[in-house]
Amino acid sequence: MRHFLTLKDFTKEEILEIIDIGLEIKNNLKNKVYKKELDMQTLGMIFEKSSTRTRVSFETGMYQLGGHALFLSNRDIHLGRGEPVKDTARVISSMCDMVMIRTFEHSKIEEFASFSKVPVINGLTDSYHPVQLLADYMTMIEYGIAEDAVVAYVGDGNNMTHSWLMLAAKLGFELRISTPKGYEVDSDILEDAFRMAKESGAVIKVSNSIDDAIQDATIVTTDTWASMGQEEEKQERIEAFKGYMVDGLKMCLAKKGAKFLHCLPAYRGQEVSEELLEAHADIVFDEAENRLHAQKGLMVWLDRQRG
Amino acid sequence: MRHFLTLKDFTKEEILEIIDIGLEIKNNLKNKVYKKELDMQTLGMIFEKSSTRTRVSFETGMYQLGGHALFLSNRDIHLGRGEPVKDTARVISSMCDMVMIRTFEHSKIEEFASFSKVPVINGLTDSYHPVQLLADYMTMIEYGIAEDAVVAYVGDGNNMTHSWLMLAAKLGFELRISTPKGYEVDSDILEDAFRMAKESGAVIKVSNSIDDAIQDATIVTTDTWASMGQEEEKQERIEAFKGYMVDGLKMCLAKKGAKFLHCLPAYRGQEVSEELLEAHADIVFDEAENRLHAQKGLMVWLDRQRG
Amino acid sequence: MRHFLTLKDFTKEEILEIIDIGLEIKNNLKNKVYKKELDMQTLGMIFEKSSTRTRVSFETGMYQLGGHALFLSNRDIHLGRGEPVKDTARVISSMCDMVMIRTFEHSKIEEFASFSKVPVINGLTDSYHPVQLLADYMTMIEYGIAEDAVVAYVGDGNNMTHSWLMLAAKLGFELRISTPKGYEVDSDILEDAFRMAKESGAVIKVSNSIDDAIQDATIVTTDTWASMGQEEEKQERIEAFKGYMVDGLKMCLAKKGAKFLHCLPAYRGQEVSEELLEAHADIVFDEAENRLHAQKGLMVWLDRQRG
Repeated sequence: MRHFLTLKDFTKEEILEIIDIGLEIKNNLKNKVYKKELDMQTLGMIFEKSSTRTRVSFETGMYQLGGHALFLSNRDIHLGRGEPVKDTARVISSMCDMVMIRTFEHSKIEEFASFSKVPVINGLTDSYHPVQLLADYMTMIEYGIAEDAVVAYVGDGNNMTHSWLMLAAKLGFELRISTPKGYEVDSDILEDAFRMAKESGAVIKVSNSIDDAIQDATIVTTDTWASMGQEEEKQERIEAFKGYMVDGLKMCLAKKGAKFLHCLPAYRGQEVSEELLEAHADIVFDEAENRLHAQKGLMVWLDRQRG
Repeated sequence: MRHFLTLKDFTKEEILEIIDIGLEIKNNLKNKVYKKELDMQTLGMIFEKSSTRTRVSFETGMYQLGGHALFLSNRDIHLGRGEPVKDTARVISSMCDMVMIRTFEHSKIEEFASFSKVPVINGLTDSYHPVQLLADYMTMIEYGIAEDAVVAYVGDGNNMTHSWLMLAAKLGFELRISTPKGYEVDSDILEDAFRMAKESGAVIKVSNSIDDAIQDATIVTTDTWASMGQEEEKQERIEAFKGYMVDGLKMCLAKKGAKFLHCLPAYRGQEVSEELLEAHADIVFDEAENRLHAQKGLMVWLDRQRG
Repeated sequence: MRHFLTLKDFTKEEILEIIDIGLEIKNNLKNKVYKKELDMQTLGMIFEKSSTRTRVSFETGMYQLGGHALFLSNRDIHLGRGEPVKDTARVISSMCDMVMIRTFEHSKIEEFASFSKVPVINGLTDSYHPVQLLADYMTMIEYGIAEDAVVAYVGDGNNMTHSWLMLAAKLGFELRISTPKGYEVDSDILEDAFRMAKESGAVIKVSNSIDDAIQDATIVTTDTWASMGQEEEKQERIEAFKGYMVDGLKMCLAKKGAKFLHCLPAYRGQEVSEELLEAHADIVFDEAENRLHAQKGLMVWLDRQRG
């Protein structure tokens, strides 16, 4: 049995296989073909942080695979409060066939997984957001921009950045990360990425220069400057991130025909300009929709691993 | 593709067709015949205002049609906060096959619909409550009181009143509205209704006299004096609405055998007396149940329009 | 039509029949056999108190029986606030095929049931928790400890204790209850139990001595000292309950091979020691899982009674 906590635990082949299953299911859906691969299975969804996108994509995805998803919000469940995580893990995994968790500390999901009898999926932690990256790479494949990709990530050194690091290091493409001073990525995770990059041939560059990062990139991406739970730092962050907005001008530095990705929600006038986002709305909203398809691929893959 | 935002956008024939489909499905349900017309479809339900009745009727209805409804409460989603309505519309409508929205400003649901790739249903706004009227008219048909109806609406000039105006104006029956001074219906909507009434032959009368409205009416109806979000005006409203309670005495003014309707929840001792409500409990709770059947008719109709 | 509000309303044969159906369904599940006995049925779940275990077990159970469960939390519905319980009961039972309620006052669920057109299940009230006892007795059967059971309940005289009283009195086994002074069981319920025990041959003993209760018992069980809603009494209760913790030492008083049960969540260092709970983790988490299976048995049984 496998869990899906971070891309670090997966090989290049496994990552591509998951996305491939997702693309096949997406194609089937278009033709109204439903293979109920998870028929009669239930997915427990634990949301300690709320999220429309993650919620709708997992719940719809599970339903379209023939199963049922249960929504447990932070009003219904508190991991580690009331009862220890290990008890919740043993109880829920005795009734559900798979569990998705969106929480703060990554260690919580690791503890849950270690006591769970069923596969656990990371729906976002403070450290990683691996399901988003499955959707992102699926989108890159569909738009024909996965091959020889040079990805520029501009902004906060957060869970999205860490997951881009893992993806690049595993798949072997070029990733340039540009963050303001004081908002760099986690040094342990960066070290991991450098180590894995040696094997895959990935090129990873980290700097504080947005221009250096975007110069000749084929894909530019960013994320909100203040994630959920960082609201009180918002003003301070807006100050610190000045100059890190991706707009039409910055995008001109990228390679001709370069694409823009955003995991949403997008804060116009902060990490991205209204104009740039809307100019790339097609790919950005396909990327959002691909959460549905990529996660279906993931759930089917995890179920098959169960043997 | 059609949306269902207000009855204003529908012809008499379309309204009757929707109710007809609902009645057919209701009859099938009694005989335990389930045609899974929305098999494998999902309905996203966005509740910015909570409501048991709307929730249970849509979720059960979707399930009985072979589909699945996702419940998104105001703890999970805030239209227009965090991200613009147009982004939420594009994301949710890329994953769901239909969307139901219960919100405050009618303009929000209009904006959502204009960006949605799938049909949007108005589950109540500050301006209109059209699904309730489908249930009301279905009940009138079942009780044999739709023909030559003379409907007296007594109370607040709110979304229910506006929807009665649209229904009467479209279907061509007589509607007398009696509101306290200062709580009249929206003048633009009233103008719309008068204009449409000319075509349909509807008779629409508006006054502050409860007795004039009820006199010889065949149906009397009312609604809560303080809707959700108006709690702080409650005392002021109770003062203003004195004399507008529908009770046994007032009901005596109506035609012999006249029926009472209420969309619930009912506040005894305010808009209706305990005795009158319980005397008409049969039709009132059938009316509530018909939310389920009418909305199933609506969802099937909208799906068929998709072509 | 039958409701399931307390075990008091059921015969020994009925209780065993419900558990038997549950065991059969559990066995089927292991073999991936799903008999969709509640196909196209909906269960309305009203939670005035939140609970992960009850939520997941009923929602998963209903789904595995071919039906759908609707989750109505205390943010979505307030029994008796806004509208009278009798109105909510009439509306919800006109749209759902079964209703599960978790609330505070037992009288509320009784009122709801009296107006409901469909079976109502007690998912916990301040007075009783009968579905937990179905799971407990199912576990006792599976572990071969139901025959000649001598059960020691140690701790708060609460809804769990009351339900153990009903179960023992109906099925005829020995139950010793040990509570601190001032936290005894309800005297009316105790009287009921004594009366029924005469018929069944049950032996029921009530004291303040934990040692007397556990001495030679074959099963020892306990529950949290401060239930939901008693948080402000917590410190006072921790004082009062000193000496009532079940730990390895106390367990030594029980019969050799005695088992420990706990309905969870467990508060280590209060009603049970970490060591004792983990030593009996196998049976305790099987007991938790049996909520799922026992409740499926119950729902199927109630549906069959409908005739």
